[in-house]
This record gives sequence, C-alpha cells and structure tokens, in this order.
Amino acid sequence: MTRPAVVLLSGGLDSTTVAAIAASQGFAVHALTVRYGQVHEAELAAARRVAQALGVARHVEVALDLRELARSALTGAGAVPKDRVEDATIPSTYVPARNTIMLSLALAWAESLGAADIFIGVNALDYSGYPDCRPEFVAAFEHLARLATKAGVEGGALRVHAPLQHMTKADIVRAGLALGVDYGLTHSCYDPLPGGRPCGRCDSCVLRARGFAEAGVADPLVGVRS
Amino acid sequence: MTRPAVVLLSGGLDSTTVAAIAASQGFAVHALTVRYGQVHEAELAAARRVAQALGVARHVEVALDLRELARSALTGAGAVPKDRVEDATIPSTYVPARNTIMLSLALAWAESLGAADIFIGVNALDYSGYPDCRPEFVAAFEHLARLATKAGVEGGALRVHAPLQHMTKADIVRAGLALGVDYGLTHSCYDPLPGGRPCGRCDSCVLRARGFAEAGVADPLVGVRS
Repeated sequence: MTRPAVVLLSGGLDSTTVAAIAASQGFAVHALTVRYGQVHEAELAAARRVAQALGVARHVEVALDLRELARSALTGAGAVPKDRVEDATIPSTYVPARNTIMLSLALAWAESLGAADIFIGVNALDYSGYPDCRPEFVAAFEHLARLATKAGVEGGALRVHAPLQHMTKADIVRAGLALGVDYGLTHSCYDPLPGGRPCGRCDSCVLRARGFAEAGVADPLVGVRS
Repeated sequence: MTRPAVVLLSGGLDSTTVAAIAASQGFAVHALTVRYGQVHEAELAAARRVAQALGVARHVEVALDLRELARSALTGAGAVPKDRVEDATIPSTYVPARNTIMLSLALAWAESLGAADIFIGVNALDYSGYPDCRPEFVAAFEHLARLATKAGVEGGALRVHAPLQHMTKADIVRAGLALGVDYGLTHSCYDPLPGGRPCGRCDSCVLRARGFAEAGVADPLVGVRS
C-alpha cells in the first residue's frame, strides 16, 4: 500500500515540481490548495489541472480569507509590484505567517489521514528575504509538528520535506522536466492579465523566466524560448 | 501607547478569562475568533458579547472550514460524546492541529499589527489528552514564531502567553471573577440545546460545572449553584 503524503499545491512551478517529486518517491499524493484572500481563478484552475495530470489520490481546496489579518499585496492590500529592483528587504507580496498557516493546515490533514509526510515547495535561494522559507523555519515546524500531534507524541517520525530548499529555479525546472512535468499546466503570475495570461513583470514571472532561461528551455506558458 | 496583543477568543470560559488577563496586563486586546467547521451561533454570539464587554481594541472573525481536512466531532464528523467516562485517550472532540492552526492565524495578525504578544487559553490539566495543549507545544510554537516572522528574525521577542497553562478550572474561574469577568456572557457547550442553552453533558459542560463547583460559586449560565 502506498503511503499517503500531504503536498501543498498552489499550481505554480515550485509546488507542481514538489508534487511530482513526492509522486516519484512512491507517495500517494494528497494535494492541498489553500485559497487565501485575493486568489486568481487562473491559479486555482492550474492547481486543478496539475492535480489531475499527476493523478493525485485526492485534491482538497480550503478557503481562508486572510484579508483582515494579513496585509499583503497578495491578499489585496496594495498593488502587486512590477519591474521591481531587487533588494534585501521583504517585498510587499510577502504574506505574514503564510507558510506557518499552510503547514498547519497540511498538518491537520496529515494527522487525519495518518500520514507521516508533508511536502512544501519552499526555496531558500529565490526567497531569501522571506523568513518562513529558511531551512531553520522548516526544521522548527517539523519539531512543532511532532509535539502537536498524537502520532508525533507516540514517536511517529512526522517529516516536513522541502526538496526544493537548496535548488535554483533552473534546477527546479530541470528536475520537473526530468519527471515529465508539463509546465504548460502551471500558473506562476501574481497579477495575471485578462484571460489568465502571465503579466511577465511581477517577481514571480521574473523568477520563472530566469529559471527557464538558465535551464536553457522554453517556458511553454510563454511559448517562445526565454 | 498601549501595546497590542492578539488574543484567541472562542467565547468560552478559558479564552474569555485569558482576554481579561491580557487586558489587565495593559495590552490593547485584538481578539481573534476562528470559526472552523461546525460552529454554533451561540458560540459566536458569546465571543461577540465578551469582546464588547471587555472593550477590546478590535475583534476579527475568520472562517475556516476544516471539515475536509480534520475529522472530529467538533467539525461535524460524528456526534459529540455525552456523559463520557474519562480515560487517557484523545477524545473524538479533539480537532487535529487545531491549536497550531489557531496560533498560526494569530501570528499572521500579530505580524501585521506589529504585536509581539499572542495569548491562548490552553490548559495542561484539563486537557492532558490533547498533545497541542502541553507546555512543550507552546514553547515550540514560540520558537517557530520567532523564526517565521520578520520581527522575530530581527530579534524581536515574540511571546506566546498561555496564562492558564497550569491552572485548574476552579483557579481559572476564580481568576476571572477577580478581574470582573461576567461568565454569564460566555458559552462552553460543544452541543447546545435549541436556544443555545448548554447541554450539561458534553465534556466541556462537565469540566465547566466542576470548575464552578470547586471554586464554590454558581455558574451564571446554569443559574443554580453547581
């Protein structure tokens, strides 16, 4: 019997690759999409397409309106920045406590399923400005999860996998392509144009384009070799 | 200027006492009520009454439907047990990862507010069967919170207060009464009768009745000396 794992799936490039990695490791993928605040239909549609293409065991969407709690360009407070000059500060697209909340929800499902494995697509390189993408954060959540749950208390080895942690965007693209991921199904843009097409100018689009360029392959969403 | 604190407020006896304690310590109370799954209108109404009576700085309700993720008698999966014989097992009213989720949402708000303090009404005595009510769990979340947030990373001393941690239910009732809490505004029952009256037989009602009895005072909800 395949072991169940909960995989946080936004439908973006990173989480899609993580889901493919979990599946390749023999887990029965239980994909969890958290809809917080200003979520675009394009993103949800991508998560559904990806879940179907991967043949996940189950895909659950949870709605959580963070607008009153968490001020962020991604929960509707202010415009998504474009053509941003990179610097060391935390960008306005940072959602306070986002990964803590997402992992907590994944933990609830894992405990209900009896799953000992949670996968998340955090990446320490591209998101070095986000405190909750660092390896120390992931390790601290894993420690918390073992204390927070019946399985953990009884000695079960609850694990939080962050396989992209030390990969560049190009590494991620290459890993996904090697696993047969169709990146044409994914959606990365923070602020899509009408019809769901990527804007090409937000941080997420810029990072994605750079990843495909460095991997030396065309992004099927753009259709031209970057 | 008073310091803001985020206080998790269900409208029950414990969280109401915690909110009064936070206010008595000079914090500007930002009360957060998380509505998960099968929540009774009586409970929400109690949270609103308590928030108003305490004159909190702000009261926010967040809806989060956990039914698909977390199987529990409190999220609608199965009947709430009555007249339960106490034992060492985790009861069916346990909601997987509940306190991890609630603290994560509180953390998001705290970070948005610039608050360094979060209050939660966990209690290690009455809920010794719940892994996420133990002091180790609270300490682990505090550690996580410092790693997860910008303020924490910059050396801010984010603290998770659990002032009821080592108190009996009678201690809690006495502490609240000393602070002027009107327990007639609160609601504890997991499975209220029509009109919102407590059933008197679920675990929460039983613990509450025992607390008032041991404190030697009448529960204003019951109207008669327990």
